[in-house]
Amino acid sequence: MVFRNGSETFKLNLFPHFFLISFLSHFCSMHLPISQLIQANKDRKFFFNFNENPKAYSEEEASKGLLDFQTRLNTNYDLPANPSPASRCGEEVSPYLQTGLGIHYPLLDADTLVNNGQHAFKSWKNTSLDQRFEILYASLENVSKRFFEMAYATMHTTGQSFLMSFQASGPHACDRSLEVMVAAYEQMSYYPEKIDWVKNMGKFDLTLHKTYKPVSKGLGLIIGCSTFPTWNTVPGLYADLITGNTAIVKPHPKAVYPIAIFVEELQKVLTEKGLDPNTVQLAADESANPLTKKLAEHPGVSLIDYTGGSAFGNYIESLGKTCFTEKAGINSVILDSCKNIDAVAQNIAFSVSLYSGQMCTAPQNIYISKTGVETADGIVSFEDAKAKISNAIKALMENPKAAAPTLGAIQNDFTIRRIEDKISQHQAQTTSINVQVENAEFSSARMMVPSIITTTAADEKTYMEECFGPLIFIVETDSYNQSLALTKTSAQKHGAITCLAYTISDDKMKEIEEEMNSAFTPVSFNFTGAAFVNQHAAFSDLHVSGGNPAGNATFTNADFINKRYIWIGNRYML
Amino acid sequence: MVFRNGSETFKLNLFPHFFLISFLSHFCSMHLPISQLIQANKDRKFFFNFNENPKAYSEEEASKGLLDFQTRLNTNYDLPANPSPASRCGEEVSPYLQTGLGIHYPLLDADTLVNNGQHAFKSWKNTSLDQRFEILYASLENVSKRFFEMAYATMHTTGQSFLMSFQASGPHACDRSLEVMVAAYEQMSYYPEKIDWVKNMGKFDLTLHKTYKPVSKGLGLIIGCSTFPTWNTVPGLYADLITGNTAIVKPHPKAVYPIAIFVEELQKVLTEKGLDPNTVQLAADESANPLTKKLAEHPGVSLIDYTGGSAFGNYIESLGKTCFTEKAGINSVILDSCKNIDAVAQNIAFSVSLYSGQMCTAPQNIYISKTGVETADGIVSFEDAKAKISNAIKALMENPKAAAPTLGAIQNDFTIRRIEDKISQHQAQTTSINVQVENAEFSSARMMVPSIITTTAADEKTYMEECFGPLIFIVETDSYNQSLALTKTSAQKHGAITCLAYTISDDKMKEIEEEMNSAFTPVSFNFTGAAFVNQHAAFSDLHVSGGNPAGNATFTNADFINKRYIWIGNRYML
Repeated sequence: MVFRNGSETFKLNLFPHFFLISFLSHFCSMHLPISQLIQANKDRKFFFNFNENPKAYSEEEASKGLLDFQTRLNTNYDLPANPSPASRCGEEVSPYLQTGLGIHYPLLDADTLVNNGQHAFKSWKNTSLDQRFEILYASLENVSKRFFEMAYATMHTTGQSFLMSFQASGPHACDRSLEVMVAAYEQMSYYPEKIDWVKNMGKFDLTLHKTYKPVSKGLGLIIGCSTFPTWNTVPGLYADLITGNTAIVKPHPKAVYPIAIFVEELQKVLTEKGLDPNTVQLAADESANPLTKKLAEHPGVSLIDYTGGSAFGNYIESLGKTCFTEKAGINSVILDSCKNIDAVAQNIAFSVSLYSGQMCTAPQNIYISKTGVETADGIVSFEDAKAKISNAIKALMENPKAAAPTLGAIQNDFTIRRIEDKISQHQAQTTSINVQVENAEFSSARMMVPSIITTTAADEKTYMEECFGPLIFIVETDSYNQSLALTKTSAQKHGAITCLAYTISDDKMKEIEEEMNSAFTPVSFNFTGAAFVNQHAAFSDLHVSGGNPAGNATFTNADFINKRYIWIGNRYML
Repeated sequence: MVFRNGSETFKLNLFPHFFLISFLSHFCSMHLPISQLIQANKDRKFFFNFNENPKAYSEEEASKGLLDFQTRLNTNYDLPANPSPASRCGEEVSPYLQTGLGIHYPLLDADTLVNNGQHAFKSWKNTSLDQRFEILYASLENVSKRFFEMAYATMHTTGQSFLMSFQASGPHACDRSLEVMVAAYEQMSYYPEKIDWVKNMGKFDLTLHKTYKPVSKGLGLIIGCSTFPTWNTVPGLYADLITGNTAIVKPHPKAVYPIAIFVEELQKVLTEKGLDPNTVQLAADESANPLTKKLAEHPGVSLIDYTGGSAFGNYIESLGKTCFTEKAGINSVILDSCKNIDAVAQNIAFSVSLYSGQMCTAPQNIYISKTGVETADGIVSFEDAKAKISNAIKALMENPKAAAPTLGAIQNDFTIRRIEDKISQHQAQTTSINVQVENAEFSSARMMVPSIITTTAADEKTYMEECFGPLIFIVETDSYNQSLALTKTSAQKHGAITCLAYTISDDKMKEIEEEMNSAFTPVSFNFTGAAFVNQHAAFSDLHVSGGNPAGNATFTNADFINKRYIWIGNRYML
């Protein structure tokens, strides 16, 4: 898409290597010079290395991807490090087909995994930063040749639409991996490798030779989730690997295939380079016999990256290991005032419907004052504002081209049951969007149209908890001040990854920014049109602040890198 | 010293501003351009901003410092923020005079301190990074005018010698503060303040205005120790302040005066600039009624810096707040082989005697194989090597010019009693250095000559615990391999800040480096002459690795800065 329009020339002038890379990315292992990648990471402007547009890739790649996916069904997915495993496991079910994928992965026990990872650490920690960068980049290049297979693998494990599956699990995940690698390259090159320290002592100079090196911590465990099995996993995975640590990827048992592609491509490159393929391992497991706690508590595991629910995340944080968590949160919308309420309602409708609200960045609670919403056309009452949002969702659901691709499918039955329970407890307050959305391609797709529960500020027990999936709460408050206060308290107590705010008052904008930022929550202001609060772009948006209960780590700040090794300075008298 | 010799011209050529600053440092508020300070911090070469040589300062300053100290005795030390406190406390006792200093400090309760600090945060967090840098630098300049008073204040609270007191509490502490400020300046300037993110969407460009800002966490508590009341406290204090957090300094009740000087000078500059002097507060307290836990557990305190014993340090780490600890450890010496055993013995003798072993960097356990020490003059047996060390200590103690200034005084009676107890339990193994060291200036100085306990590797219960003060253990091992293994295990289990190793084998040097670094302990190799393992220079040596039980933080790496605030990125549709 980017290369099919008038801005192409402009971009080419800015980035002379860019054209070459994006078009040749699936043919050869090239990237911008690291200094330019570091600058892009620091600049935070629009930047990508892997093209997000499926149309930028060839028809052949598209058909091969589908064929590879279909061929994989009902087979064993063995890996270079485990060509003939003694045991296998696999329990993935397509949210679109509601039938099992029949793919089985190597099943290893915790001790074996840890021993392998510790053994591989002995060689991996002694590779150079440049060598690791090139190996990891090559793995991303190889993954990029499988973006279509990746898209189908993601669709049929997570329920994401084809386009989201393609983008999130493919180019976006690869760009976030590259962002991590670039950040690490900069951080780990901070100190000089060696210097002479010369202190004049009066009659003589005291000279000490000093060295500085980042010493890797050891073996890392990366615990994935079922909805974003690569996007949320690869930052921790590539962060461990680029910093010289080895890695065990423990995917959600219902979403293994997408990340298995990354692990496979990494192991292939490692093997080609004569390195231990167990530098990165897949720890597929069974829901009935999970490996996660055994691995997390194993004394041989030094680092843990985690995406998932808060209770388990808090347990991970309590283990006293170096850990990086993304947990649950409640994302809020403050709807105070706006120019065009219809544009706002449409924007909110899309953000809450996208992947049926199963994104960690999706809004859940919408706070509107009972005094209504000030607009260019006068005050819109609370009831009218609510109706605008409800109607915008309805219109989106009635749009046959947009509805099914926007919703995707629900990843698992539990999400459906939880929302049905919640609705049944609040039937009088629930606005159902009475549209039957059909997925023309997959008649068995597990789908659910978003619902709205209307409530008042006082009824916190109804809305003040994360309700993952296609259900939102429109909360009537006494005033803008109460809307802001509740949004802030919610972020402080329950965590928040995003906050969406609509106001035409500069003073209120400043106040919302200050108050929400002081609760360590970023704010997106007045998004309409093609800007959606759900989207966090690599090389620009910091994902999760690390300062509220939604998580303790950020994609990708310096801490996400530096906590994975220890700087050691040795001194030598020569 | 530095400017009284032939290398002066060379230095002047390298640092044109340097001469000016060092000589004018107590007359005007100037520093190198920040870009040059950042480069110095990154380069890790010899660098200082505050001259460590008392002779670089005038006679007038020296006499004024002594007079100021004497005038302070038996008075109230009120502070700009607390000009007439309702209560006061003070229980400092000079280790040289063994009489109370009679100085009383404002005594405030925990809630008042926290409320003050939270109120001051409202204005301090909105100052600019440049403004904070200049305010903090001015405070260091002002402290530098009181380096002699600081030296006496430190001597008569810690028992350090005059020279160590002058250097450690004055110029070295100020240089470590500046190092922190410079590191923070670089880290907090990492992202651009604002950018336009422009994504081509085919038919149009999507433009989002984005901002990036480090949001300060709130109120910090810095818990000091009795032996290095400024050197160990100011890094956390200046780190909190430069990152926009406010600070409460909780000194050890027996060592308040030195850090009170820093707090006073900070409050003075804050007041001059029209800012809240409670931005930094002194929380002096009484041993019988300590404030530390009340402050540490207070929900209004977000950050804690701590120096002290391991049990309390582990408690601080368990509170779930952002914390930076330096705890106890056991520093080891591996004596495998060397060119000149006498030079080695002298070096070790000085390092273990300096401030009577009350430095966190002082060696405690010296591992020597029963097969002896290989030297240029042949094998020196274990017994002979031990005798060399013992004799070198004796010679140092018999040197009337060197003995008393090297030992300083013992900070408190408890250290003496603990060592006497240990010796009485191991009388047969103890080598006492039978020299009576007199301090010509202070006949009542609390002094103790170092003792040596000789033991075997198997007897871990004797030597495998921190024994703070003038007592070392010479451990007979089976081999170099066992010496290394014990040194490594010791660092992993009990923590280590330093490791001193003597070997003439390149292979062993490489092995020691790799093994000890993998236990996250830096190694100093083959130190003789004027290089001592105890010394950690600002702008060059990383103090505490943060990777073993001796502490979780480092003076000064990026983590020491970055954990004090959260990067927040807001997005605006314009």
